[in-house]
Amino acid sequence: MQKPSIPKGTRDFSPVEMSRRQYIFDTVRSVFRSYGFAPLETPAMENLSTLLGKYGDEGDKLLFKILNSGDYAANLSQEEMRNASKICEKGLRYDLTVPFARYVVQHQNEIVFPFKRFQIQPVWRADRPQKGRYREFYQCDVDVIGSRSLLNEAELVEIVESVFGKLGIAVTLKINNRKILYGIAETIGHADKMTDITVAIDKLEKIGLDNVNAELRERGLDDTAVAALQPILELTGTNAEKLDKLSQILASSETGMAGIAEMRTLFGYIERAGVTIEVELDLSLARGLNYYTGAIFEVKARDYAIGSICGGGRYDNLTGIFGLPDVSGVGISFGADRIYDVMTGLELFPENVDCSTFVLFANLGAEEESASLRLLSQIRKNGTAAEIYPENGKMKKQMEYADRRNIPYVVIIGSRELETRCATVKDMRSGEQTQVEFDAIAQFFTARN
Amino acid sequence: MQKPSIPKGTRDFSPVEMSRRQYIFDTVRSVFRSYGFAPLETPAMENLSTLLGKYGDEGDKLLFKILNSGDYAANLSQEEMRNASKICEKGLRYDLTVPFARYVVQHQNEIVFPFKRFQIQPVWRADRPQKGRYREFYQCDVDVIGSRSLLNEAELVEIVESVFGKLGIAVTLKINNRKILYGIAETIGHADKMTDITVAIDKLEKIGLDNVNAELRERGLDDTAVAALQPILELTGTNAEKLDKLSQILASSETGMAGIAEMRTLFGYIERAGVTIEVELDLSLARGLNYYTGAIFEVKARDYAIGSICGGGRYDNLTGIFGLPDVSGVGISFGADRIYDVMTGLELFPENVDCSTFVLFANLGAEEESASLRLLSQIRKNGTAAEIYPENGKMKKQMEYADRRNIPYVVIIGSRELETRCATVKDMRSGEQTQVEFDAIAQFFTARN
Repeated sequence: MQKPSIPKGTRDFSPVEMSRRQYIFDTVRSVFRSYGFAPLETPAMENLSTLLGKYGDEGDKLLFKILNSGDYAANLSQEEMRNASKICEKGLRYDLTVPFARYVVQHQNEIVFPFKRFQIQPVWRADRPQKGRYREFYQCDVDVIGSRSLLNEAELVEIVESVFGKLGIAVTLKINNRKILYGIAETIGHADKMTDITVAIDKLEKIGLDNVNAELRERGLDDTAVAALQPILELTGTNAEKLDKLSQILASSETGMAGIAEMRTLFGYIERAGVTIEVELDLSLARGLNYYTGAIFEVKARDYAIGSICGGGRYDNLTGIFGLPDVSGVGISFGADRIYDVMTGLELFPENVDCSTFVLFANLGAEEESASLRLLSQIRKNGTAAEIYPENGKMKKQMEYADRRNIPYVVIIGSRELETRCATVKDMRSGEQTQVEFDAIAQFFTARN
Repeated sequence: MQKPSIPKGTRDFSPVEMSRRQYIFDTVRSVFRSYGFAPLETPAMENLSTLLGKYGDEGDKLLFKILNSGDYAANLSQEEMRNASKICEKGLRYDLTVPFARYVVQHQNEIVFPFKRFQIQPVWRADRPQKGRYREFYQCDVDVIGSRSLLNEAELVEIVESVFGKLGIAVTLKINNRKILYGIAETIGHADKMTDITVAIDKLEKIGLDNVNAELRERGLDDTAVAALQPILELTGTNAEKLDKLSQILASSETGMAGIAEMRTLFGYIERAGVTIEVELDLSLARGLNYYTGAIFEVKARDYAIGSICGGGRYDNLTGIFGLPDVSGVGISFGADRIYDVMTGLELFPENVDCSTFVLFANLGAEEESASLRLLSQIRKNGTAAEIYPENGKMKKQMEYADRRNIPYVVIIGSRELETRCATVKDMRSGEQTQVEFDAIAQFFTARN
C-alpha cells in the first residue's frame, strides 16, 4: 500500500506548529478585540459568480472550483463540459476581502455602520507551489467599513504597533496615499498613466532610479514628464519635510493636496498617540491592488528579510462590485505564514508555547495510579495542563515520552512516595529532582507555569 | 444587479454568532489542553484517493470534489469526463477522523505515541440541506491513539463532564461496548448477525420493543434467538447490576466477558474520579460507525431535545485503511452546531459574550476627541475592549450605534467634562449616568468587565 500524502501546496500543522500558529492568532485576535473589532466568518465556498472577475484574468484561473454534486454532466455536450462554469457553480474563497464585501452588501440592512470586523480564516489559490507560497494559507483581516474618518487609519497603525509589539517583532510601517500618487501623475501631465507610474515607482527599491526612469519612458512618459518626476523620486527628510516639499510640487493638483492633507492629519494622530514604531512616508509604495483610493500601508520586519508581513489601505468602493456604491472603508491584513517564519527565524516564540503538557505523571502501578489521578485532577483544576502516562510501562519509555513531547516536569509516585505522601518531581530541563508534599503539588506547578 | 448570496447549506457567522461560537470553541479547547491534548490541523483538501471508499457508497457521493486546475479536460473523451475521478484529484474533507488516520500513518516516525491530539476544523458534505443540517460545519475531535489503556476512556468521560460543566449544559452520558454487543450476538447463536442485531437494538427507544422484535425476525433471527435476546433488551438496574446480570447471560462468550470486564474497569475509574454527571450503561446504544471495537459513547442534553451532542468510541484499526495495522485509539467528537442550539435554546451564554466592545467614547469634536483618545488608550492597556465613534456625528446616532452594537457603557467627554476632568459614563442597560475622574476611568471599567 502506498504511503498516504496530501495535495501539493497544502500542509499539515503538527502540534508544535499549531501551538505556535495559535499563539500568533490569539495575539492578533486579542488586539483586534481590544479595539472593538468583532469576529466574522464566511463559508469556504462562495458562488463562482461572486468570485469570478474580482481578481483579474490571472486570479480567475487561480480559483479552485468545486464540481457540482450529483449528475454534473447531465445533458451537457463535450464542448460544454470543457467550460468549467457549466460543471462548477461554486469555488473556494480566494481572499477574505471579496467575501467581506459580499457579506456587507447581503446584510446591509442588519449591519450597524461603521462596521468593525476582523476575520481569520484560510484562503485557497491554485498557484504553482514554491517555497513560502502555499495553496492553502490563513489571512487575518481587520477592516472598518462605513466611515471616512482618518481616526480609523490611525487606529490600524496602533493595531500594527500593538500586534508586533506583543509578538516581539521590530517593524517599520510604510505609508503612502493613492491621492498623492494621482496628484503626481496629474502634475507631470500624465493623469491617465497613474497606474504605469506607480508600478514603476514601486520598483525603485528593487531596480534603482535609472531603471525606473527607463521603465517610465517605455511606459510612454516623455522626457519632460520624467524630468518633472525626479524631485519626487529623490525626496528625502522627515515625513513632515517630505509633505512640505510635496505640497509645493503638487500645489496645482486638488487630489494631490487632499492626499497631503490626509497624511498630515494621520501623522498628527500617530504622533499624539505616542506610537513608537518607525512610520515612514514612502512614495515608492504602491501595492498592486487597484481598489485602494487613499492611505496605503505596508509593514516590514526590521531584522528579517521576507517582504511585507502586513499591508492594506483605504478603499472607497469595495462594495460597488456588488451594487452598493459609496461605502468607504479601510483595512489591513496580517500574513500569518510570514509572521511565523520571522518569529521562527528570530527565535521569538516564548519557551513554553511548544509544551502542550506541563506535567506528566509517571505510571507505576494500580495503587500509585489512583493516588496520581487524585493529584492530577487538582493540578488541572488549578489551570495547569497535565496528564498521566496511560500504561504502567517501563520507566525509561515513560521518560522518553516526556522528553520527546517537551514536557517540563515529571511527577513520580512509587511506593515510597505513597508512604511519605511526598511526590518526586523531576525538572526535565535541569534534571534536578525535588520532593513535594501531595497537598502542595497543585500550587507548586501553578507557581512555575 | 442581483443581491449576492451564498451556496445553499452554507452560512455566514455574524459577529454575535461568532462570539458565541468562539466561546464554545474556547471552552472545548481549554479543557482539551488541560488534559494534555495537543492541537493538530490538516488541509481542507485531501487527495480523493484518501477519502474515497472510507464512508461507504453514500459517503462517496457526498464528497465535494475539486476540479483539477488548468486544462482539466485535456485528451479526455466525453465518457471519461463523466467520470469525476478523471477530472478531480482532490476533495474537501468529510470528517476529521480519516485525515487524522492519514496523518498518523504519514507521520508515524515523527509522532510520539500515545498521541493525544485535538482538532477543531470545518468539514464539508454535499448532503441535502435541511434544518440543522449544513454542508459546512465544524467538528471538535479529541483522540488518543497508540494506547489500549482504559484510563483513556475514563479521561474522555472527565472531559465530557468538564466541557459541559463549564458550558452549563446538564447532560447524560450513555456508554456501551461493542464487545458486549458481539457477545450478545454470539450468545444467542447469531455471531454473524451482530450488525443486524445492533441496528435493531439501536431503535429500541424510537420504535419500542415489539417493533424491534419484528425487525429482528425480518433480519433473519429465529424465535429462539429473539426469545434469548429478551432478558437483555429488558435489562434494568444500576450499571453494576446490569453488568452482573450480563456476566451471567454472556458467561460463555469470551469477547462478551472481555467487554464486561472493560466496562467494570471504566466504571471503577469514573467512580473514583468523582464524576457527577449521569453515566449510564445503555445496551441500545450502537452508533452507526462500524470501526468501533470497544467502548462507545453518546452524550445528550437533559433539558433540550436535539439528539446526540457528543459521541465517539474505541477503534482498534483506524489506521489499517492506510496500511498501519494494530494501532488502537479512542476518541470523541463534540457537535458545535448542536451545542450552540442547546445553549441558545436554554439561554446559557454569558451576558457579555455578545459584546465585542465594552466601552464606547462618544465623539464631540477635535479637542474632546484628543482627550478621549488618551483615556481610550489607558482603558485598552488595562484589557478592556473599547472604541471611539470615529466621527463627530449627531449624539443620537452615536447612542443608537452603542445600543445596536450592545455596548454596555458610553463615555461622554464634552467641554464641561474637559474642564472638570471628570467623564460622564452612561450605563446603557440601566440608563444611569455617573461622573468618573479621568485618572480613575481605566480602573472603573476593569472592575466592571
